[in-house]
Amino acid sequence: MNKNKTILVAGGDLRQVYTAQILAKENKVYTLGFDKSLLPSDKIKPIESPIMLEERVDFLILPLPVSTDGITLNTPFFKYSIPVESLPGMIKDGGIVFGGKFSEKIKDVFASKGIETIDYFEREELSVLNAIPTAEGAVQIAMEELPCTIFGQNVLVTGMGRISKVLVRILTALGAKTTVAARKYSDLAWAEIYGCRGVHISRLDESLGEYDIIFNTVPALLFDEKRLKKLKKSCLAIDLASKPGGFDLDAASANGVKTIWALSLPGKVAPVTSGEIIAHTILNILNERGEDNG
Amino acid sequence: MNKNKTILVAGGDLRQVYTAQILAKENKVYTLGFDKSLLPSDKIKPIESPIMLEERVDFLILPLPVSTDGITLNTPFFKYSIPVESLPGMIKDGGIVFGGKFSEKIKDVFASKGIETIDYFEREELSVLNAIPTAEGAVQIAMEELPCTIFGQNVLVTGMGRISKVLVRILTALGAKTTVAARKYSDLAWAEIYGCRGVHISRLDESLGEYDIIFNTVPALLFDEKRLKKLKKSCLAIDLASKPGGFDLDAASANGVKTIWALSLPGKVAPVTSGEIIAHTILNILNERGEDNG
Amino acid sequence: MNKNKTILVAGGDLRQVYTAQILAKENKVYTLGFDKSLLPSDKIKPIESPIMLEERVDFLILPLPVSTDGITLNTPFFKYSIPVESLPGMIKDGGIVFGGKFSEKIKDVFASKGIETIDYFEREELSVLNAIPTAEGAVQIAMEELPCTIFGQNVLVTGMGRISKVLVRILTALGAKTTVAARKYSDLAWAEIYGCRGVHISRLDESLGEYDIIFNTVPALLFDEKRLKKLKKSCLAIDLASKPGGFDLDAASANGVKTIWALSLPGKVAPVTSGEIIAHTILNILNERGEDNG
Amino acid sequence: MNKNKTILVAGGDLRQVYTAQILAKENKVYTLGFDKSLLPSDKIKPIESPIMLEERVDFLILPLPVSTDGITLNTPFFKYSIPVESLPGMIKDGGIVFGGKFSEKIKDVFASKGIETIDYFEREELSVLNAIPTAEGAVQIAMEELPCTIFGQNVLVTGMGRISKVLVRILTALGAKTTVAARKYSDLAWAEIYGCRGVHISRLDESLGEYDIIFNTVPALLFDEKRLKKLKKSCLAIDLASKPGGFDLDAASANGVKTIWALSLPGKVAPVTSGEIIAHTILNILNERGEDNG
Repeated sequence: MNKNKTILVAGGDLRQVYTAQILAKENKVYTLGFDKSLLPSDKIKPIESPIMLEERVDFLILPLPVSTDGITLNTPFFKYSIPVESLPGMIKDGGIVFGGKFSEKIKDVFASKGIETIDYFEREELSVLNAIPTAEGAVQIAMEELPCTIFGQNVLVTGMGRISKVLVRILTALGAKTTVAARKYSDLAWAEIYGCRGVHISRLDESLGEYDIIFNTVPALLFDEKRLKKLKKSCLAIDLASKPGGFDLDAASANGVKTIWALSLPGKVAPVTSGEIIAHTILNILNERGEDNG
Repeated sequence: MNKNKTILVAGGDLRQVYTAQILAKENKVYTLGFDKSLLPSDKIKPIESPIMLEERVDFLILPLPVSTDGITLNTPFFKYSIPVESLPGMIKDGGIVFGGKFSEKIKDVFASKGIETIDYFEREELSVLNAIPTAEGAVQIAMEELPCTIFGQNVLVTGMGRISKVLVRILTALGAKTTVAARKYSDLAWAEIYGCRGVHISRLDESLGEYDIIFNTVPALLFDEKRLKKLKKSCLAIDLASKPGGFDLDAASANGVKTIWALSLPGKVAPVTSGEIIAHTILNILNERGEDNG
Repeated sequence: MNKNKTILVAGGDLRQVYTAQILAKENKVYTLGFDKSLLPSDKIKPIESPIMLEERVDFLILPLPVSTDGITLNTPFFKYSIPVESLPGMIKDGGIVFGGKFSEKIKDVFASKGIETIDYFEREELSVLNAIPTAEGAVQIAMEELPCTIFGQNVLVTGMGRISKVLVRILTALGAKTTVAARKYSDLAWAEIYGCRGVHISRLDESLGEYDIIFNTVPALLFDEKRLKKLKKSCLAIDLASKPGGFDLDAASANGVKTIWALSLPGKVAPVTSGEIIAHTILNILNERGEDNG
Repeated sequence: MNKNKTILVAGGDLRQVYTAQILAKENKVYTLGFDKSLLPSDKIKPIESPIMLEERVDFLILPLPVSTDGITLNTPFFKYSIPVESLPGMIKDGGIVFGGKFSEKIKDVFASKGIETIDYFEREELSVLNAIPTAEGAVQIAMEELPCTIFGQNVLVTGMGRISKVLVRILTALGAKTTVAARKYSDLAWAEIYGCRGVHISRLDESLGEYDIIFNTVPALLFDEKRLKKLKKSCLAIDLASKPGGFDLDAASANGVKTIWALSLPGKVAPVTSGEIIAHTILNILNERGEDNG
């Protein structure tokens, strides 16, 4: 474990506050870029601007994404702008910057000062763990939207990636009759191992009229007008795929199929857990690099 | 199966509308005691008052509970009162009245005319099936209330009756670390079979500080001030027990423990499913009695 | 917990040896009625005959069943006979005798000396826990007998008691398509909650030709010649029911249906676990009686 | 689906016989290279030598592995040798040869005649599906070897590949307390999602003394003398890894740890299922290539 380091958590939403809290258990943690009202009254030391930092830090933790404009830090809960250019000076020699989805330009801001950047969003375990709040959030939406139990419903899940694997575990335990549609035969094999029916995507149309709920995880327009017309009117569609999404939203609307495009669920339904996931991913990275011994 | 009977579904909430819809698949179904706006435009024939019924029916289906005042039918979605006394005349000789929680007095209204009453609320399968929407609803509340996933939480479930059995199945699949507290050693054995830790109620106090969520199903004051003081402040308490409930609500409030007393979840979170459960229970009763051959 | 008591474990098979071992962790334990080769070289003190006991004991633990002939102790692994009449003198005043399936006559042997007997076989938790080795043993037999995986097989389980509940949990996790046949509609509801198809026993005949494996738990002749003729020739039948068993064995043989009547599985497939179950049941009884405080 | 093709299944063990049976449901199937006693008396047409084939076939199905000596077909259940050189002449123009683990040399025998070869052993779904009989077989061995239930045992699974994923699903349902040791943090995340404890391989030594059963799936010498010495003497080790295996067998023996190296379980414990897996994989390949339309 990494202990007694000096860390600055700068920018982001509630998730980063929770990240800071976990890291503060065994380290000295400053925060920058949050409204005071968000911060717990514990060991975290909030600062109001870069110049208020009393010492340079071992690790700088930036949010996901690091920046939305390529110039200033992503600080949705702070009234001032923080230029990324102001950050390198806060880091010790040999220190490391962690962030999610660095652009090349922002990486260069640090690289030009000889500072290493590590993108935690590229870590496989973060993606795996994020599948948990995504799947739970998706099930919560279905529970809220439907006047019936998940138990007994005919549910279609498209794709058999991380989110689907967590989702079908929940759905089958809830008693949904779950079908997975996928292109790879090995994914269909997994579907059956996990207690679902597997349907090859080329034969999806045959069963479309059966489903009460559809969870799409495939970022491709699977549900065009032709397929939407085959769905029950009462079918609820929950799209978990990033752009372009899996549904032709206009056609869905025209056909009376309620569609909810649920993006970024982890931060919305479970910010504490999301913060923990980021903190643990950073600790894993440090463990792997043997920073313990450093 | 029972087919081609004449049925009147009178009174109740949305659940009874869905009960009517299912029965209407294979029978002629009239409804009485609902606002028109609630009724689907299908095979159901709504009537406005007892005198408008064109024929006497084989089965009269009453709500759960049948009456709240002992005199008039329980009709929360109807602007007129319907005296229970007006109902017997609508039933054929040899017909049957089904209802939930008949009082002795109301039973007598029918018995005095030689009409049989059957209380579907006393059927074991209705209680088992109602555990499903109750457990799902309880999990939905926990998901909505908490800023973290159910995955990874330390959860306590008290009691090991029907609701708990369904609940722990969902919780363990979601990845909660689930403990069941019960008095009977056989219930603790079931808890362990279902992947939980079992704790005898006499030793509950030792672990109280560990839990993030508590689901109480025992209708007795398990959580008095002394026990509430041992809980984490952030612990969420969801009480599924009927009166008197399991929590001293004043003490919970004084100790900063958020407590939600979630009663009658099936009708609230899943009226369609609840209606289906009532309909299927009635069909089971008729099957058992060999009404098919009638 | 009960500690520092003096205990004699007398008679029985390997299970009782393991019972003795567990009790010996915190108590002084003598054994009587086992061949020396069976006993572990640990804290247990074996004696060869009642007269060799150095002191009278707090608790005498007898096997399941206590006796097969009503006169001598059930000692399948001992070359001498031990009359039950010789046992009461070994017990302290206020001591207790535990055993499984006491006959009235044997109870009287102790009662006439003022000694209390407690039948651990009547404890619900022992029955629940014994369902685990029974269900595992049944699955093991199916795995050994069949040239295919349990995954993907159509499996019928009759009855929905303790054994069935444990069995369907294993079968569904293994990926069997599991059907439960039962008479009570509430049992069919549980079957569906646990991920199985439920079929009322009155309609069992319709699906009999589908099954690859049948586990019977109902002690009644469900599978007579007429039903056996409807089974696939390749169907494997495993009967877990006590006498009279569920299968007409002659008719099964004549119809080429392989039937295995698997009785007393816990002692056979998992004697260690069975011994632990007996020990824990006895400890539970003592806990309930507050012997701790004694 | 592929229908009405002419197929020759040549060589292999019982698995290939079952492969032939499945393909024979919708195709004309010849077999070569099996003792007659193995063949079912159904639609399959056995031939005794290549020259007895009445027509050239669309598809030739060879076993896994195709050959053990590089020259003759792998025919463990046939008294004559069949040179691979004799096979190409039996195939139609445009026909395809399927086999498992083709050597380059044997591929060339077909390629030189312009015949395509496809290695079904390289298909992901075959590997996924083979994990099922492997995992079931491993659990069966543990059940047979141990005098206790799997329920309640502390079980270690090393690695988190296909076999482990199926194995932990079975183990957790059986009630084993299951720990997964892996090197990748994402694999540890999956372990926790699937209800296990995850332990990084670098910290495995700390818990080694806890385990009752170890299933190794990692083909590297994880369990050297140092680690073996930390195991309980009663620990059962089941090695599912291919060469070099995970255990130092001499050191295990010297330390009294029973180790079973269980290779090639699918063909041993479930030849029917293994044959079905090969047949379905071949059908999937043909489906993907649109042979339907051919």
